[in-house]
Amino acid sequence: MRILGIDPGIAIVGYGVIESQGSRLKHIENGVLTTPAGMPLPQRLEQVYNGMKKLLMLFQPEAIAFEELFFAKNAKTAITVGQARGVALLAAAQESEQLFEYTPLQIKQGVVGYGRAEKNQVQQMVKVLLNLPDIPKPDDAADALAVAICHAHSANSQQLFKIK
Amino acid sequence: MRILGIDPGIAIVGYGVIESQGSRLKHIENGVLTTPAGMPLPQRLEQVYNGMKKLLMLFQPEAIAFEELFFAKNAKTAITVGQARGVALLAAAQESEQLFEYTPLQIKQGVVGYGRAEKNQVQQMVKVLLNLPDIPKPDDAADALAVAICHAHSANSQQLFKIK
Repeated sequence: MRILGIDPGIAIVGYGVIESQGSRLKHIENGVLTTPAGMPLPQRLEQVYNGMKKLLMLFQPEAIAFEELFFAKNAKTAITVGQARGVALLAAAQESEQLFEYTPLQIKQGVVGYGRAEKNQVQQMVKVLLNLPDIPKPDDAADALAVAICHAHSANSQQLFKIK
Repeated sequence: MRILGIDPGIAIVGYGVIESQGSRLKHIENGVLTTPAGMPLPQRLEQVYNGMKKLLMLFQPEAIAFEELFFAKNAKTAITVGQARGVALLAAAQESEQLFEYTPLQIKQGVVGYGRAEKNQVQQMVKVLLNLPDIPKPDDAADALAVAICHAHSANSQQLFKIK
């Protein structure tokens, strides 16, 4: 099963593509979509949407897993990131019904086997599980691979997307 | 100039269409798009997006004015409403470069002429300025007309959309 993991944001959207066959995982691709800080918000949202559409077309994932939004310290940040996330979810929903989301705790549990794992432990496990030479950079790409791995490890239980 | 005002949300999106000719305003239409509470978030976002696209096709506005997001008390609400707003902005950005946004204070100032006006005063002015028999219901539709009026009254200054 091909899984696309997404870590959405307005300035940077991390993505990671893996293939899971039983308990075996294979790394396909990882990277980030970025939008320039000086660009008006509506155009940045368009770039996120168009970038997502290209990823979906290119990798044809059978499942798309999102990291649940990190709760920002202030409402302004939450709204801005929420806007980017909405657009990324829309692009995914238009192409697939297999959308999933996992909290940071579930991702740590699913990747490291321990919900209170450190960020670095998660990244090391991503490297090991996908047989990569290094930890993927930037963090957003590694986080996206982590959510894809989490879904691969949870796919039997098939936790469907739930409304927040 | 035909102006579409939008008051975005996940459960209900208010819209109002007016025509401005110099200082004269004419009411064209108002209403709401709604999404059911039990529907998964990705599908609700699709409904908001598709509804926006239909409005834009139907009314062919020359300018689209958004109410700036009300800062919710908690991050969860801010993220949810932000997601709907992102999708509404995306739909508008794909059809037009004339996007504008106004804060609640600017809308009160632009409609009533007084930034600390009460909600009811804004609604009364919407009714009077557009020569309507009653205050439009629900509030979301009246709010959308108010932001459209605010843009008509501010159109000379042409305040372009700014990033949050």
